Amino acid sequence: MHFTSDNASPVPPQVMDALLKANHGYSMPYGNDPEMSLVRDRIREIFEAPEAAVYLVATGTAANALSLACLCPPWATVFCHRNAHIEEDECAAPEFFSGGAKLTLIDGDHAKMSPEALQQAIGFAARAGVHNVQKGAVSLTNATENGTVYTPAEVRAICDIAKAHDVPVHMDGARFANALITAGCTPAEMTWKAGVDVLSFGGTKNGLMGVEAVVLFDPARAWEFELRRKRGAHLFSKHRYLSAQMLAYLEDDLWLKLATRANAAAARLSRGILSLDVASLVHPAQANAVFAAWPRAVHRRAHDAGAAYYLWPGNQSLDGPDDTPLSARLVCSWCTTDADVDAFLDVIGQ
Amino acid sequence: MHFTSDNASPVPPQVMDALLKANHGYSMPYGNDPEMSLVRDRIREIFEAPEAAVYLVATGTAANALSLACLCPPWATVFCHRNAHIEEDECAAPEFFSGGAKLTLIDGDHAKMSPEALQQAIGFAARAGVHNVQKGAVSLTNATENGTVYTPAEVRAICDIAKAHDVPVHMDGARFANALITAGCTPAEMTWKAGVDVLSFGGTKNGLMGVEAVVLFDPARAWEFELRRKRGAHLFSKHRYLSAQMLAYLEDDLWLKLATRANAAAARLSRGILSLDVASLVHPAQANAVFAAWPRAVHRRAHDAGAAYYLWPGNQSLDGPDDTPLSARLVCSWCTTDADVDAFLDVIGQ
Amino acid sequence: MHFTSDNASPVPPQVMDALLKANHGYSMPYGNDPEMSLVRDRIREIFEAPEAAVYLVATGTAANALSLACLCPPWATVFCHRNAHIEEDECAAPEFFSGGAKLTLIDGDHAKMSPEALQQAIGFAARAGVHNVQKGAVSLTNATENGTVYTPAEVRAICDIAKAHDVPVHMDGARFANALITAGCTPAEMTWKAGVDVLSFGGTKNGLMGVEAVVLFDPARAWEFELRRKRGAHLFSKHRYLSAQMLAYLEDDLWLKLATRANAAAARLSRGILSLDVASLVHPAQANAVFAAWPRAVHRRAHDAGAAYYLWPGNQSLDGPDDTPLSARLVCSWCTTDADVDAFLDVIGQ
Amino acid sequence: MHFTSDNASPVPPQVMDALLKANHGYSMPYGNDPEMSLVRDRIREIFEAPEAAVYLVATGTAANALSLACLCPPWATVFCHRNAHIEEDECAAPEFFSGGAKLTLIDGDHAKMSPEALQQAIGFAARAGVHNVQKGAVSLTNATENGTVYTPAEVRAICDIAKAHDVPVHMDGARFANALITAGCTPAEMTWKAGVDVLSFGGTKNGLMGVEAVVLFDPARAWEFELRRKRGAHLFSKHRYLSAQMLAYLEDDLWLKLATRANAAAARLSRGILSLDVASLVHPAQANAVFAAWPRAVHRRAHDAGAAYYLWPGNQSLDGPDDTPLSARLVCSWCTTDADVDAFLDVIGQ
Repeated sequence: MHFTSDNASPVPPQVMDALLKANHGYSMPYGNDPEMSLVRDRIREIFEAPEAAVYLVATGTAANALSLACLCPPWATVFCHRNAHIEEDECAAPEFFSGGAKLTLIDGDHAKMSPEALQQAIGFAARAGVHNVQKGAVSLTNATENGTVYTPAEVRAICDIAKAHDVPVHMDGARFANALITAGCTPAEMTWKAGVDVLSFGGTKNGLMGVEAVVLFDPARAWEFELRRKRGAHLFSKHRYLSAQMLAYLEDDLWLKLATRANAAAARLSRGILSLDVASLVHPAQANAVFAAWPRAVHRRAHDAGAAYYLWPGNQSLDGPDDTPLSARLVCSWCTTDADVDAFLDVIGQ
Repeated sequence: MHFTSDNASPVPPQVMDALLKANHGYSMPYGNDPEMSLVRDRIREIFEAPEAAVYLVATGTAANALSLACLCPPWATVFCHRNAHIEEDECAAPEFFSGGAKLTLIDGDHAKMSPEALQQAIGFAARAGVHNVQKGAVSLTNATENGTVYTPAEVRAICDIAKAHDVPVHMDGARFANALITAGCTPAEMTWKAGVDVLSFGGTKNGLMGVEAVVLFDPARAWEFELRRKRGAHLFSKHRYLSAQMLAYLEDDLWLKLATRANAAAARLSRGILSLDVASLVHPAQANAVFAAWPRAVHRRAHDAGAAYYLWPGNQSLDGPDDTPLSARLVCSWCTTDADVDAFLDVIGQ
Repeated sequence: MHFTSDNASPVPPQVMDALLKANHGYSMPYGNDPEMSLVRDRIREIFEAPEAAVYLVATGTAANALSLACLCPPWATVFCHRNAHIEEDECAAPEFFSGGAKLTLIDGDHAKMSPEALQQAIGFAARAGVHNVQKGAVSLTNATENGTVYTPAEVRAICDIAKAHDVPVHMDGARFANALITAGCTPAEMTWKAGVDVLSFGGTKNGLMGVEAVVLFDPARAWEFELRRKRGAHLFSKHRYLSAQMLAYLEDDLWLKLATRANAAAARLSRGILSLDVASLVHPAQANAVFAAWPRAVHRRAHDAGAAYYLWPGNQSLDGPDDTPLSARLVCSWCTTDADVDAFLDVIGQ
Repeated sequence: MHFTSDNASPVPPQVMDALLKANHGYSMPYGNDPEMSLVRDRIREIFEAPEAAVYLVATGTAANALSLACLCPPWATVFCHRNAHIEEDECAAPEFFSGGAKLTLIDGDHAKMSPEALQQAIGFAARAGVHNVQKGAVSLTNATENGTVYTPAEVRAICDIAKAHDVPVHMDGARFANALITAGCTPAEMTWKAGVDVLSFGGTKNGLMGVEAVVLFDPARAWEFELRRKRGAHLFSKHRYLSAQMLAYLEDDLWLKLATRANAAAARLSRGILSLDVASLVHPAQANAVFAAWPRAVHRRAHDAGAAYYLWPGNQSLDGPDDTPLSARLVCSWCTTDADVDAFLDVIGQ
């Protein structure tokens, strides 16, 4: 009954096997390993993007911050949802890597930017003079921080607004696979065909030890990305261990299988919660996370039974009146079992 | 016959075993894994530094740049050898992480700072007014980029100059283990007992996939380091995989055994080279790297025989007159065998 | 009938005289001019702050950004009103000078931060972990961007919230004199006695060519400020010309007289507007600016009669239906005459 | 007998008159004053550069640092002489404004870069890979920090090396007028015709209160410069006071007349020194500064007689044996009189 985060999970055996296999003999460092060539080819193939530049880094924050620094000069602003990871959970990494750019926070239900709100903000910035930060980039997150998913049409609607103002688009895809499974579209349809310029293609939350790909569909800024990556201390010498993991992740659609499993667990969990009188969903559960609310006493019971998850937002407390509803975040991963879910539902549904 | 770099080597089986062992069940992210507690305890024990703050990052550049940013404000300068990694091989990462500090380059034979040159430079900076960058930090590298080693007494001589000017000292220990084996002293004697304030304690070049520890002997700046690490995108969510590697590295003195092996291979190689009429050493071979020179024709022969290493400096070419001596860098690692070394010596000594 | 901005005004004769007087012989540069000693003494006296560190720069943005950089590390956030100059009109200068800090935007009527909104935001940040930007500084503007004034009690209420969280307070006093006249209190009561740590003490908008003082009531960060000023290229070599202006500004309470005149003009203007059926105030007119609305046709008439001012916000247009009310900003300065005001009122009141 | 620096001088009456003249009525701020149009036109005319972008800032450091930030990305390096102002006297402003670029220090006699040394350094950087800072820009200073002057042919030799590596060239012309007078060429010949891309065109040291122009001969980066200037807090609201000074400076060749006077004073001074047995020149005196050496006892005598100048370098002392020769810097300005020079020569030549 562990639902704190998908990053608390181990890595699947296929990834460990790939590491073992890669761990033989000498290999040229810094991305010159043969596995990286295969990774690049495979990602280009999956995304139907034969010209794309592909790089690996070890953290999602690095993928996001380096990507945005390539898209947004220091005197510009990144438009993102108020609850985006780049705003809330990266300790100003985008500001650091960009050299002091701003983030302009866009409202919208369930962590999805409202196109109208984006239109208004970007339109305002488009009239900026020399005293004001300039329009820089749009960053959208799919799946979102609230476990919801932009459809390809919704991504396109965001990108169309950006493109009408000549603004490039970044997608934070830390949970890209989970979004893709839900949307039922191709990787290309979710990204460049809808107008996305750069993708943070997540691996870590979906099963790797710490590997994310950055996909620049337009390779014009590839060399700049490489220099920023090195200068940001994110270029690995023993790069083969990143490549090997990513290769295993892509092989036989492992990445999709892992996300399918995580999403299915979350769907089972949200269905179960909805069936309880005591609980209700806070956000639609469209990917691998469930945001729901139920009385404090039930949280205490779950806690006592060993269930692990976060009250969300974090300023709530288990101390207080029994009946007060408290909201929680429950994240499923590739290794969440139906038994886990059912055991948890049993506890809170008693 | 692979001597390009110690970072071209695989990881030893103990490390792979540790990863396999760590890969079970859920584990709290971001350094809250139980393995990290053990790592912290063990490093404090090894360094006889019970108060030290200990953190893990994945690259040596991150370890160096984050450490220096904590020691040196943006309006100050880092004194380092002209050939230091932080100057030559990090694409201005120290400048980036510090927010625009300078590096003041110190001369000295074989990549070791001359105490006199350091004294002069730091004395000059100590007289700085508001127009000039201020004295910030000293960074020395042990073992050096030229395969030489500072003795504890030499480290202390550098630190004494720094301390006389109230300047903190960082040691880039990407090859700390190799230096320690040569010096035959304790980790404490090589570091805080000699005056070092912060150590980049290398794991990657000595056998890990990409794990370095930063040891702040004075924990006063620990929280700042944590924030800089996160903001620099160097805080791992699935942190257990860093901890597990580092733990295995420290267990049963594996780190020392690996470095002993690498140093022994380099010693065998340098002895062999010295015994050849055709070749000579460029720098004393005191750790796991050998810098030597021999005629171009012999380099061609080695190349044709499959030996892998870099001409050093890199502006030399295999094309040209046969007799011209060219210099090379040969790096041994924990997996360099005596047979490798002997085969190579056979080729160049024919 | 020129009301575009107080920065469109000339400088009063006393300031020109002071420049002429200062323009004799040699004078030591970089703030070592004798006039600067007098400025320092006089500001300390005016603010009853004998220990304060006092520096001059040439722009309000420099005063604000340098001050905030001293108060807020790069991994923290500055709490300010959503319409603050540092947010809206400085092209991310605070982000640049701080090395990538954030601004957290606080709501509140008429450009004054709501204490409740500040309390909530700062309380949220106070619970920040390593993933989040930390609480850095509070910056409030007096008089505000909307022509309103915080009373000393209101300043104290803001500062008390900040101090309860151990957060320093900066006041953007580009129009400090205008606020002071309205509040009828002493400079000390408006600043350090209420809890302000650093003041941008404006001169330019109130009559100087381009001179602002920064007053650090706690001199602990004085040297850091000096280095940041130099490094930001804001240390003047021929500093006497800044000092001489500031000295004239302080002499015989010229600064207060200029602000009194500007405020009186604005009061006359706002009273006149209120007496017209056609117009209404958008914000209370408490300092030297009037924000008011009236029908588009009347704006056209004023425009045709040669009145100069900005529609505010700037996305409104003189083109469109006659009856639509449009809002405007009218700023008075030390050289706005009653005749100017009356002529303008005549035009719009016809 | 005041020779500490040209920035200790007052401004000439023409400049004061221009300020008085500009100080009437309202004027649009931020460079939209009519005087600025005239300045732009006049500078384009003087430099035979009808497309050049022209901006004013108040300090030489701002002119240099903003210019270099436009030419050199954060992951690159600026090649400059070891004694350049940007290296020695700007407290790392270029590093700050560029976001962490490096400076690569080039040797050369009398503060002029040796073309061979530049060629070697830039050639080395041209081979840089992703681990190394990239070639960014060349910055040369004319007149130099040692009072010497690059001829147009020497400027061209530097620029040719830069251009062969596709590297843009900045000229720090804090004392441009002094250099031009000595070289006897046109402003165009000294700059863009020789290959200079951006010029810091100094006004302050040659008679203004604090006004420098930046001339971008290729206007492609003009908008970026404007944003960097604003963000660096160097855009003046009451801009007319900068424009008016610069306009007066350019009118009737005042700038050339002022520099002619300063250079003539320095020539008289250096000739006088050479005629003394006791003294010798340290650098050729080609502009408005004289670097010379004579015995300590003579320095003491000059000091006692009220002569003001700096021992140069600054680590020398008036205390010590009488006969030891100490070197000094003596800077003349537009207001240095022949009588001043002769009085000084009398003192040291007694």
